This record gives sequence, C-alpha cells and structure tokens, in this order.
Amino acid sequence: MDGLLKPWALGPKPWFPVTNIHDLETPVPIVDLDRMALNLDRVASYAKERGLALRPHIKTHKSLTVAAEQLKRGAVGLTCATPFEAETMSDVADDILVAYPPIGDARVNRLLALPEHVRLTIALDSVDAVRALASAARSANRTVGVYVELDVGMHRVGLPSVDDAIALARLVRDNPPLEFSGIAFYPGHVRDAVDEQDAKLNEMDAALRRAVERFVDAGLTPRVVSGGSTPTLYRTHELESVTELRPGTYVFNDRTTAAIGACDWEDCALTVLSTVVSTAVPGQAVIDAGAKALGREPMRGQPDEGFGVLLEHSDVVVKSMSEEHGILDLSRTSWKPRVGERVRVIPNHVCIVVHLNDVLFGVRGNEVESSWPVAARGRGYEPATAAAGVLR
Amino acid sequence: MDGLLKPWALGPKPWFPVTNIHDLETPVPIVDLDRMALNLDRVASYAKERGLALRPHIKTHKSLTVAAEQLKRGAVGLTCATPFEAETMSDVADDILVAYPPIGDARVNRLLALPEHVRLTIALDSVDAVRALASAARSANRTVGVYVELDVGMHRVGLPSVDDAIALARLVRDNPPLEFSGIAFYPGHVRDAVDEQDAKLNEMDAALRRAVERFVDAGLTPRVVSGGSTPTLYRTHELESVTELRPGTYVFNDRTTAAIGACDWEDCALTVLSTVVSTAVPGQAVIDAGAKALGREPMRGQPDEGFGVLLEHSDVVVKSMSEEHGILDLSRTSWKPRVGERVRVIPNHVCIVVHLNDVLFGVRGNEVESSWPVAARGRGYEPATAAAGVLR
Repeated sequence: MDGLLKPWALGPKPWFPVTNIHDLETPVPIVDLDRMALNLDRVASYAKERGLALRPHIKTHKSLTVAAEQLKRGAVGLTCATPFEAETMSDVADDILVAYPPIGDARVNRLLALPEHVRLTIALDSVDAVRALASAARSANRTVGVYVELDVGMHRVGLPSVDDAIALARLVRDNPPLEFSGIAFYPGHVRDAVDEQDAKLNEMDAALRRAVERFVDAGLTPRVVSGGSTPTLYRTHELESVTELRPGTYVFNDRTTAAIGACDWEDCALTVLSTVVSTAVPGQAVIDAGAKALGREPMRGQPDEGFGVLLEHSDVVVKSMSEEHGILDLSRTSWKPRVGERVRVIPNHVCIVVHLNDVLFGVRGNEVESSWPVAARGRGYEPATAAAGVLR
Repeated sequence: MDGLLKPWALGPKPWFPVTNIHDLETPVPIVDLDRMALNLDRVASYAKERGLALRPHIKTHKSLTVAAEQLKRGAVGLTCATPFEAETMSDVADDILVAYPPIGDARVNRLLALPEHVRLTIALDSVDAVRALASAARSANRTVGVYVELDVGMHRVGLPSVDDAIALARLVRDNPPLEFSGIAFYPGHVRDAVDEQDAKLNEMDAALRRAVERFVDAGLTPRVVSGGSTPTLYRTHELESVTELRPGTYVFNDRTTAAIGACDWEDCALTVLSTVVSTAVPGQAVIDAGAKALGREPMRGQPDEGFGVLLEHSDVVVKSMSEEHGILDLSRTSWKPRVGERVRVIPNHVCIVVHLNDVLFGVRGNEVESSWPVAARGRGYEPATAAAGVLR
C-alpha cells in the first residue's frame, strides 16, 4: 500500500502532531488499521472464491481512502445511497450504483450531473421513478443503468409482485437512454444469528430463482442480480441467482454484527475512544460519548441492551445516554473506573457513528498512524455565506 | 435586524439559487423564521420580566447566526458543551460557560486556548477536574470562573452531597487563577408535562435553598445559581435561588417539548422536509428521512411512539427507520400519499437533528429566505491530508 500519513491532529488549527491515542481529544472514533485490513481482505477473497461481484456500500465508511482500498482489492464498483455520496466517490470510482429511489427533481438532476466518467446505475421500484429518470436522462443525453428492486421480505422498498417488476423492467427497456441492467434486492430483514438464517435464506433463494425465471421468460434476462448485506454476507453464495453483493458494515463491523455471529468480536475495527468524566453519582460512571457520538441505535430492536459495550470490559454496557453523556452500567463488573480513565466503546451500529463524525483516526496499538476525513458525510448542501442576520 | 440573505443553494457547487422549498433537495432541515423569532423573543421577555440572566445553550442550534440573535435579545452569554462549540461561539460571544466536566489534557488545553476576549466559566463536579484545570489555568495565566455542579435529581453528573460541593468550592477558591463563581444544576429529570411538575419543582426549590444557605454559612456565597432547561423553562422563577437559566431547545422546540406542554405545536420552528420515495409495500409509505436525518430519539423514553410526526398530518408518525428510510404508519389516517409528495416531519428531539446536518434553511411559507452553516457541528478535529492510502 502507499505510504503512511503523519497525523496533524486536533482542533480547528493544528495543535500538535498526535502520535499516541492518549493525546487524542475524546470522544473520537478510532479505527484499528490491521483489523480493517483483515476485514477488507476476507470479504474480497470470499467474493473472488465464490465468483461474486463485490460492490461495497460506502454508507458505512463514507471515506475516499477506504473506498480506494476496496477498489484495489477488486471491487467492481461502489454502492451509494445519496447524491453527495455518489459525487464524493466519483473521485475514486468509475462505476457507481445508487441504491436509492431517484424521486424528486433535485435528487435526479444532481445524480445526472455526476462526472461523465461515472457509469451510473440506479435501483428503483416505481413507474414514477422510471418516467422522471428517463426524462432527465434524455435531457442530459446520458445512459443510465437501472436495477428493478424486488421486495423479498424486508417490506421497505421494492416491488412485492414479480409481474409488476417485469412490467417496470419493460418500461425501462422501452425508455432509452435507460437500460435494464438487473434485479436488486436487500435482505435486511435477515438479522437472525448466522446459524439461524436457513429458513429465510431458503425462502429467498426460491423466490429469487422463480423471479429470474419469469424475467427470462419475458425476454428480460437480468445481467445482474444484486443483493447481500453484512449479516448474511458469507452465505450469499447460497442464493443461487445472485451475481453481486453489496455489504457495507463488514469494513468495520460492530456490536450487532458480532452478536449475531456474522463476525468475531476481534473483527470490530472501529471503537469510540472515550473518557470517564464523572463518578460523582454512586453505582455508575459517566463517559463523554453520548448520543451525539454513539447514536441511539438499539441491539436488534431490543431497547434494554444498551448502546454499546466496552472493548476492555465486556461486562459493561452504555445503559443510557444524553447528548454528550454516556452512562455506564457498573452492576455486573468488578472494575472501578476513575475520572480521567479512558475506554473504547464498540458501538451497536457503526454506520451511524461514522455519520456523526468528520474524521476517523487510524491506529495500531496505541500509535496514531493516520487520519482521514469522512468525506461523504452530510448532504453536500452549501449554505449562503451567512455573515448577516437571518431574522428581520 | 440585518438584511436578508440570498440563498445560493445546493450541491457541492452552487446548482441554482433556490427560492422555493419545492426546489430544495430532501431530506433537509428547514426553519420557519417567524416561529423561531417568536421563540427567541418570548424567552428573552420571560427572563427579563423575572430578572433572570439568560445564557442559552447553543447545543440545539450550533449556529453563529442564531447565537447572535440570542445575544442581541439580551442573553448575558452562551452555554456550550464541547471545546469546538466554545471555539466557534467565541466569534460572537465574550462570555462562555462550558457546562461539561473538563476532564482530559486535550480537552482542558483546548478550552484554555480559547481567544483571550472570552470570559470563560466551567462547570465541574470533581477534585480531579479542579486540580487539572487549576494547573492548566496557572500555566496559561488565565482566570477561569468555576460553577460547582450539584445533582438535584438527574443523577448524571453533579455532586449529590452539599458538603462535598462546599469542599470543592473551597478548593476552587484556594486555587487561583480559578474563581468560585457559583452553583450549577440541571433539572433534566423533570420531563413531566408542565402541569405535573409541581412536586419535583417544590423538592428542587427546597434543596437549592438549603444548599445556598449552607454555601453562605461557609463563606462561599454563590454569585450565580444556574439551571433551567426547556421543559421547565417558564417555571424557572419558582426556584427562588436561581439567578440564571440555560435553555437550549426553546429556539426550535420539537415534538417532545410540545407533547409535554412546554410549547404549543405552532412553536415547533424546525421540521425535516422529506419526500415520499416509495409506496410499493401496501399499508405504508417510505420517506427519505431516516435515522441519518431524524436521529433515533424516543418520545420520553417510549419506544413505541415513533420518531417524529408529520406537520401536515398529525395522525401519521414515522413508525420505524433505517439509515435513509423512514416508514410512515398510515393505519390511522385517510391520507393517501403519492410517490414524490413532500411532507414535513416534526422530530422528537431537534438537537440531534441539527447535529446530523451541516446547513439549516430559513423559510417563510414556501419561500427560502436564507441558509446558514451549523458551524459548531462536529468536534473540529482536523484530519491529516489523506491523499495516500492508509493501510500498509
């Protein structure tokens, strides 16, 4: 890989070069670079061995540096949700799937204004979306690939009816410069432990086979069948029709991923480094990572399992939070935290943690080796230069 | 007030001047400027009439433009939680309270490096914090006011024992350039409906009176007794000892504030403008505001009341979310949403929504009149310029 970076570190101006995590201000997300590299390598190998195209979803890291590492390892392209993610990633990628319905003129126009070197594909599930996208693509004179989205049990977006999906694919085909490129689905309803996913995966496999058969019969053979998320990642090959997978979380993993057995605890590469700021109230300790640092994501829908677990003390969870405070439950531990002590929190849902931050710090052991911007965070809306007041 | 701003609007480059909310990309936070002005005026008047010093917490808006409006209306200074908030607000304020324990060298040093024009006060609750702050203040040769934090029922930070608090105040007094400036407390445990707060407020009033008496007896008369949050805002004067209030949420208000009667529904100034992106799954509609736009904040600890309510359809809540999807519960409404239709969501907790965004758009009716950066969002950590790879 390329050379290492000297981290010039904290504050709106550089304060000092930080080389040790003890000098980092908290709360701060730190990435174990060796663990991240293993995660990237493992999934790249899995995809290669199984003959699957890997198109990682960048929502988890939103970082050009990490996306570049994914592409170096053979990813065929990237998956994005928002126009700003796609714009940002166009700096490193020539092939981008926007796996989000292109609804609304502002969104559609922004996608079609992506740099010309980007081969753009969009997943969608409605006649309205096809018509709006086709009209805009004609105006922009730009070829746009389309995946028709099927609902295979998530019940969020996607067409439940294969007939409707085929009709939509036909509408796409008949509306150049749109091109019908394939079928997309998202198995996000499969959040069971990995060894309890059989029934849902079998059902999904059968549904996908039937759907593909119907598309072929209708003369609309899908070039790509795209699915896959981190919880089902290493079982993607069991879905016979699938040709492409789009996992996001695997790059860092998190408490949820480890809890269902989709990774080992040692594969959790991102933690939130935090400081104990108060032990004034007996029976608990307060850290400086609250809802603005960790997000308020539950464990698999369970509200009573807390919002993260300590890397160093697996018997201690963040039981409640306010914006800048996390309350540690000390009822099951013999550990006696001191004010000023530092801990690392494995968050429940790492994608949200990254979305809350502007910078990730790369570490090996206690050494801070690099840092990089969360370049695609936010929406990329630009404010008016607001020097004056806003009220009359 | 100063002149209005021309909003040059969306995208990493200006796309077009947006003058109508229909041209805004979604999801996007929009602020009803007239409602915000009324909120600002009302609280400024309340504080003035009751002889209370108003020191708004800027965590809610994180915006220089809004802070300037608060100061124009007579706020004695601002309250911040993070070093970056304080740094940012030093552009408009000469008097800043950091209401967060100063633990950790990085945090303390950063606070002491605030521009010299800032009169800095810090709230704390531990001997460790006093010693570290005193040492750093001596090195920086900077006077720092200190509020000693009492726990009056929130059980988060703050000393439960008045004896301990007095001992801490004495330690502060004996460690110049620290100055004992007063007592702080946070009534965040009072989240009851406004007309059901009597018992807790009476108890708090009595506890505060006793504490102040004890401080006076010990020769440590507090110049300031600082408390107050939005749910109890207009009852602050019932706490006889209190001299200063620090509400944050009142500037925008939110679903929680309205639900407990601490504001009217018409006082909710910030909504998240969203687009219906899918109706493919029967019985629900999907909007483009999910957990990354709304946050996953429950209503007063109730997980089953959803994550926001529609401004235009008070019988429709966001019942569940994923990162970029919000699922509307249509079971109690006769409204039939269409794909592409736009709605405004009143979020459960507006502080988190602002923290998720970089820009707020100011509107009157359907007209976009201004936009401004959420300048103090994030931590102000600066990444190394990461052009190269981060893995070896």
